[in-house]
This record gives sequence, structure tokens and C-alpha cells, in this order.
Amino acid sequence: MTRPLEEARKALYEKLDRGEDPSPFYNETVWPLLLALWREDPPVRPQFQPYEVSIHTVGTSPEATILAILGTRAERVYLLHTEESEKYLERIRKESGRAAYPIRVDRSDAASIYKEVARLLAQHRGARVALDPTGGTKAMTSGLAAAAFFLQRVYPEIQVVYVDNEGYDPRLRRPIPGTEYLVRLPNPYEVLGDVDEHLARTLYQEGEFKKAADYFHKAARKTGQEGFRLYGLLASTYQAWKDLDFSGARRALESLLRELDRDAHLKHPLNERRKALEAQQKGLTAILALLGEKNLSDKEGVAWLAATLLSGYEGAKAHLPLAALYAYRALELLLQHLALGMGLDPDAPHFAPGEEKALRDTLEALLPKGEEVRIPDRFGLLHLLAYLKAKDHPALKAWDPKRLQGLQGALRARNKALLVHGLESPKEGDVEQVAKLARELLKSLGVEAKAEPIPL
Amino acid sequence: MTRPLEEARKALYEKLDRGEDPSPFYNETVWPLLLALWREDPPVRPQFQPYEVSIHTVGTSPEATILAILGTRAERVYLLHTEESEKYLERIRKESGRAAYPIRVDRSDAASIYKEVARLLAQHRGARVALDPTGGTKAMTSGLAAAAFFLQRVYPEIQVVYVDNEGYDPRLRRPIPGTEYLVRLPNPYEVLGDVDEHLARTLYQEGEFKKAADYFHKAARKTGQEGFRLYGLLASTYQAWKDLDFSGARRALESLLRELDRDAHLKHPLNERRKALEAQQKGLTAILALLGEKNLSDKEGVAWLAATLLSGYEGAKAHLPLAALYAYRALELLLQHLALGMGLDPDAPHFAPGEEKALRDTLEALLPKGEEVRIPDRFGLLHLLAYLKAKDHPALKAWDPKRLQGLQGALRARNKALLVHGLESPKEGDVEQVAKLARELLKSLGVEAKAEPIPL
Repeated sequence: MTRPLEEARKALYEKLDRGEDPSPFYNETVWPLLLALWREDPPVRPQFQPYEVSIHTVGTSPEATILAILGTRAERVYLLHTEESEKYLERIRKESGRAAYPIRVDRSDAASIYKEVARLLAQHRGARVALDPTGGTKAMTSGLAAAAFFLQRVYPEIQVVYVDNEGYDPRLRRPIPGTEYLVRLPNPYEVLGDVDEHLARTLYQEGEFKKAADYFHKAARKTGQEGFRLYGLLASTYQAWKDLDFSGARRALESLLRELDRDAHLKHPLNERRKALEAQQKGLTAILALLGEKNLSDKEGVAWLAATLLSGYEGAKAHLPLAALYAYRALELLLQHLALGMGLDPDAPHFAPGEEKALRDTLEALLPKGEEVRIPDRFGLLHLLAYLKAKDHPALKAWDPKRLQGLQGALRARNKALLVHGLESPKEGDVEQVAKLARELLKSLGVEAKAEPIPL
Repeated sequence: MTRPLEEARKALYEKLDRGEDPSPFYNETVWPLLLALWREDPPVRPQFQPYEVSIHTVGTSPEATILAILGTRAERVYLLHTEESEKYLERIRKESGRAAYPIRVDRSDAASIYKEVARLLAQHRGARVALDPTGGTKAMTSGLAAAAFFLQRVYPEIQVVYVDNEGYDPRLRRPIPGTEYLVRLPNPYEVLGDVDEHLARTLYQEGEFKKAADYFHKAARKTGQEGFRLYGLLASTYQAWKDLDFSGARRALESLLRELDRDAHLKHPLNERRKALEAQQKGLTAILALLGEKNLSDKEGVAWLAATLLSGYEGAKAHLPLAALYAYRALELLLQHLALGMGLDPDAPHFAPGEEKALRDTLEALLPKGEEVRIPDRFGLLHLLAYLKAKDHPALKAWDPKRLQGLQGALRARNKALLVHGLESPKEGDVEQVAKLARELLKSLGVEAKAEPIPL
């Protein structure tokens, strides 16, 4: 504060104490000194920042708006005024030294303020804009602040500023002269983690694990609550798992389990899901063993990998050509495993004569009438299935020949699919039949394999 | 307004006109009548709604807060007050008849208001909460409104209300008695389409076409601007295309082209991309013809389908096992087309003796030393490639034997992939090599096929 202003303020308070009307002295002496101070070196906290455009709501106290214009120093100034406050425009222009552009709004219509602000920001896209809600009615103030933070998502370079003070004097009905300063209003998004957490949970439910992890980490950073980081690790686990990056998934899951062991996190809600998480950790280990050893008789590994593929099928259902790939591969894997258990090498099958007869009969029953029965060098889905049925495998007990006949077209359609070797689009009903059989075969293995993300 | 209130107001203005101090009469007569009115039948616009919880900022005019409490009628009331406004709490409690719970905040610290509001809302999750920013400093008012709309994303059942009036009397320094009413502040999100448009464009760029289309349609509905609906149709086109639903894609694209023809949309920015859009329409038609006729010598169809698969490869790069499928299938399709052009039937190949010799020699050069050369019944990627090279196909001119040798492992890895028949994970370098060859073969067809979404 300047020395003359300090002295003027002292004189003003002496007048107040004597019961005199302070207004003439304020207007003639104090205000011009305040103006001079703000023109010279405006008190801005934490520091002065130049703006290119400023937008102000104007009420019946034009002084605050004048100080705000001097504090933002924008070249282009817009004044959102009402019918009542139109009379202050001339004074604001004169004392701020800016050819401020007026826009008339309804004092009670926040929606019209939203629209005007959106229009102005679109017009000044990319510019540094200060929005100042200091003047005007509560609807105008609330409306400008709400619109500003809302539109900050589209125009990240805009800021909300207002004229605050260190003390309001009820006798003066003004801020104590010389204690006014311009300050930035923080964006709730930068302060609160609530919306990040909400978005993270929504994205997690949608299976968008990468984005979910990002939002959980943001929430952790903003709130300082480490607990969110653990949810981030969980989302990263399923992100890697979904990408079939099983070692990445296990690494993330093991980090999570270590964190849950720490004293600080004993009360973390995920500790209630500990058993499920540990089962998934074992499942990932079983898959990695299967992929390493390539031994298809490994029941645990096959069950968890098939469960993974079936979960991929569920997740990809909105994209049928992809969903089909998961379902077919899950079924193939399970059929290979079961056939191997009955002694068949699907890559080089050979049988006793009685066995071959049974297989031919089963194939004949499966295929459309009159179609030639062939036994190929390598067994695909159809022949694996026929082999197991011919061997009377218990997992296929519920599937009578007629039911299986309905499936043979679906099984043979695999290679004709657009993403495999052909030009056909998979049919939803076919694919669901394939997935259904795979689910039943998986169940018959008797391994509790749950590859789905645990619900939050 | 009640009759006694009307008369009291008249008397009040007579006092004002006579130059008397209106305060005693206001406090003793007018205010009790106002209170009685708000207790009985609060003037709420557009209509009264019951709330369970209300949160108010309290400034140095407690009357507005008292009216707001009576207008929201919540059982549970929180008062965000400052050091200065603490002295009004007792009066607010008494006149509102509510055991309002006080929470002290700093008059200049919006961030602390954000945090208190977030805490209270989390505590009353699911309740109908009214947030009232009528009282308090500009920082408190702006802060409460900003926090409320921000948190409405998490708690959709909360609303912002405030006490407005039909006229403010500068002499009274109060609203004209009897013109006060409680009203809801609209959420900027419900009024403005700007953020919807922004989100729609971002999602479009990320390839999230379904969500993008939804947001474009929201923006159209909120702003009444039909133009956004056309962007929605564009996003729906690419959504269907990405899902390999080619007839759905063509249907959406043709709707879009029809809309662009309308007089109202002649100036629509997409009309500048008209040529590209029409080319894509032709491309979709070519793909549909290929899928219908299943004639792999159809160059247009093969080119557009291969371009689609390569675009799918680019889009799925973050999910390597899926990306690999697209790349391999694109290459296969192109090799099949080119081989067919040289007279080969990949499903039942047969050659003149000289031809077979050349093929064997090429395969020997491609395969690792000492590996047995076999000519199978059906030609996969490796044999198709060898056949074309043996025939000295011009499209493979740039690929010398050494370069092709580097590719043979990648080609043979296809069937070993986890999503195909094996237990291997595709390698990024391999897949990129496959995509690279496919891109070059596509280029050699000389068809301008651009299946990528046009940039917005």
C-alpha cells in the first residue's frame, strides 16, 4: 500500500469515528489513490499474470470490476451487465482505460450467462482469458464461476479470478481500502479427487482398465490417499491380463498383494477380496507354466487360459468378429486338452481299427446327410469333438448327437471367418453356441478358474 | 404475497419516502411477515421440491439463508460460515427452526469449501441435497456453485438453489420485500453443448466411435444445431466399419451424404471432405461385392478390405495379439489375390514341372538351412509368398531373398499364436514386418483405398 493511501485511510476512519458520512471523502480522495495503485502495480496473488481477454459480471458496485480490469490487464474486455448496471459502464470504461464491450444479460438467468461465455470463449479460442465473477447478483456470480470451470475442460487456458480483500467494513459497506487484491479461484477438479475416483470406477466397470488406472492414480495424487494407488494396480493387472500379457498381469497383481500386506492398508477394502486375488495370482502362474512348458495336459493351466479366453469373449461381445476368435480358441484348447487325456495326439492322430470305426460313425451322425467322412492329418474342432463323443467322454454327456449336429456348422465356420482365412462374418448364435460348449467343458475340469475382474 | 405483507411493504416505502430509517419497521413488522409466508408456503420456482439435506454458505445477511432453509425444507442443514458470520448462526437456527450444523470455513479459501462439500456429499450419498450459495463472500458463492456442479457428476441427485428476487432496492439495501423466491440454478452441462462436442471430438480421435456418436447427438440435442448430428453419423459409420459390419457402415455413410446434400447443410465442414467420403462409400460397396461374390480376383474389393484390415491393425496396436490377426489376414488376402492373378488356386495348387522346380528353389532359399522343403495341399502365407517370388512378381521386386528370409519365421508364427491355434505371443517386430509387406503389396495394386477415419 502506498503512503498517501495509508494516510487517506486513516483520515477516512477518523471521519467514520466522528459519525460523519464517509462517502464524499472516499470518492474524492481514497478511490483515486486506490485507482492509482492498481494502475501502477496491481496487488495480485500469488503473482501478476497477463491475460489477453477478460470477461466480468457487472453489478451495482462498479469499483470491484474496475479493479479486476486493472488487475488482469487484458486488452479485450467484455462486461456482462444487467438493465440496472448499464449505468456504470461509462465509469468502468473511463476509469479502467479500456473500451470494454457490453453484453446485456438477465440478472436472474444463469443459462444466458453460460451461453454468452461459451460464445465468447469460442470466439477467442486459444487466448488466455480471465473470467471475473466479482460483480453482479448471486445468480451471475455463481453462473459465471460454474460456466468457467465447466468450459475449462474445453479451453484449458482460461482462469477464474476475483477481487478479494483482507477485511470488509460493515460501516463503509466496502472492503477496507487498500486491502483489496486479485486472486485466482482454484478449479474444483484440481482440488478434489472425487470425480477422478468416480470416472475410474465407471471405466473399470466398462473394462477400460488403462484409463481407469490413470484416473485412480490422479485421485491418489490429488487426495494424498494411497489407497487409490492400490485400485490403480488392480486395474493395471486386468489391463495386462486382457492384453494376454500374463507376466505383466502377475507382476502388477503381486505388487498389489504386497501393498495390501502393509500395515497402512490392512483396512483397505481390497483386503476383503484377498482370497479371490490370491486365486487369480495362482491362475496367472498356472497360465505362465502352460505357456512355458507347452504341455496341454496341464489341467490348471488349460482351465485358467480357457477362462481368460472366455472372459475375453464376454468383453469383446460388442465386436463379434473378435469375440468369435476368443470363443473358438477357448473351445479348441479345451478339446485338445480332453482329447490328449484320452490318448489322442491332435497333430498326428492314430487309432486302433475299432476306434476309427467309432469315430467315422460319430462323424457321419454329426455331418449333414450324404457328406463324405474324412479323417484328416490334423484334428480341428469338429474332429476333436467327434473323437471325444465317440469315446463317450463324460463332459459331453449332456450333448446328444442332435445338439452336436447343430454345432458342426458353427465349428466349420471358424476358418471361413473374415479375420481368419475367409470372407464370412461370424453369426452371433453360432458363436454363443461355441462359447456355451466351452463353458461346460471348462466346468467339467473341476478347476475354480475365475478370470473376470473382481467387482469394485 | 399475503395481504398483511403487502400493507407492511406499503408502510415501509412511505417511511422511506419520508426519509425515515426503515430498519426498525423492517425488522419488527416486515420480516416476521416474510418469515410467516415462507414457513407456510415458500415461493419456490418452478415448484416446491423436498430435499433431505441442505448446505448453505452464510454471510453477513442471514435473512437470505433463513429463507433458503425454509424454501428447501431439509431436515439436515449445514451452515458453512466464516469467523465474521458465526454470530448469525443462533438467529438462523431460531428463525428457521432447524438445528443447523455449523462448519467454519475461511472466507477466502474456496478450496476448503470444495473439500467440505465433497466430504458432506460423501457422507449423505444418495440423499437429495440442496446446495445454496446465496450467502457469503464471492469466493464462497462461486466456490459452492463450482463445487456443486462439479460434484453433480458423482452425485446426480444434488441441486443448486438460491434465493433470487424480482427487484433489489438500493435504499433498503435489500430485495423488495415479498419479491423473494427460491429457484434452481441450471447445470451448465445441461445448457451447453460445448463439452459434449469436445468429448465427442476427443473420443473420435481415440477411435472410440460409439461413445463419440453419443456425445455428438447430445451436443445436437442441447444446442439445437443439426450439424452435430452429421458428425454423429460419421462416427457411426466408422464404428460399424471397425466392427467389420460393412453394410451398417455404408448405410450410415449414405445417410450422411444425403444430409450433406440438403440446403441447410451446404456449409457444413464435412462438405469439404465430400470427395473422401464418396470414395469411402465406393470402397464399402466394393467390399460388400467381394464378400458377396467371394471372387478374390476382384482388385477393388481386395484393396479396400486389405486397407480396412491394416487400419484395424493400426487401431489395435495397443493390443498386440489382436493387432497381429489383422496384419496377418491383410497379408494373406493380398497374397491370395496376387497368386490368383498369376494363375494359382491356393486351395488346390498344381504346376508345370518347371514351375514346381522354381518354387522349391525359392522355398529352399527362404527356409533355414537344412529344413525339408514340402509343397502342401493348401497354400498358406509362406508358400504363397514363395510362389509369387518364384514367379518374379513385380510387387516383390524390392524384397530380396535375404529380406524375405527374415520374414519366414514371422509368417510361420501365425498359427502358433495364442488366439489362433497355439500358445505363443506374437512379437511386435514380426507383426510390424508382416504389416509392412502387406502395405507395400496393397500399394502395388494401384487402388487408392483409404479406410482410415477422415480427420475432424
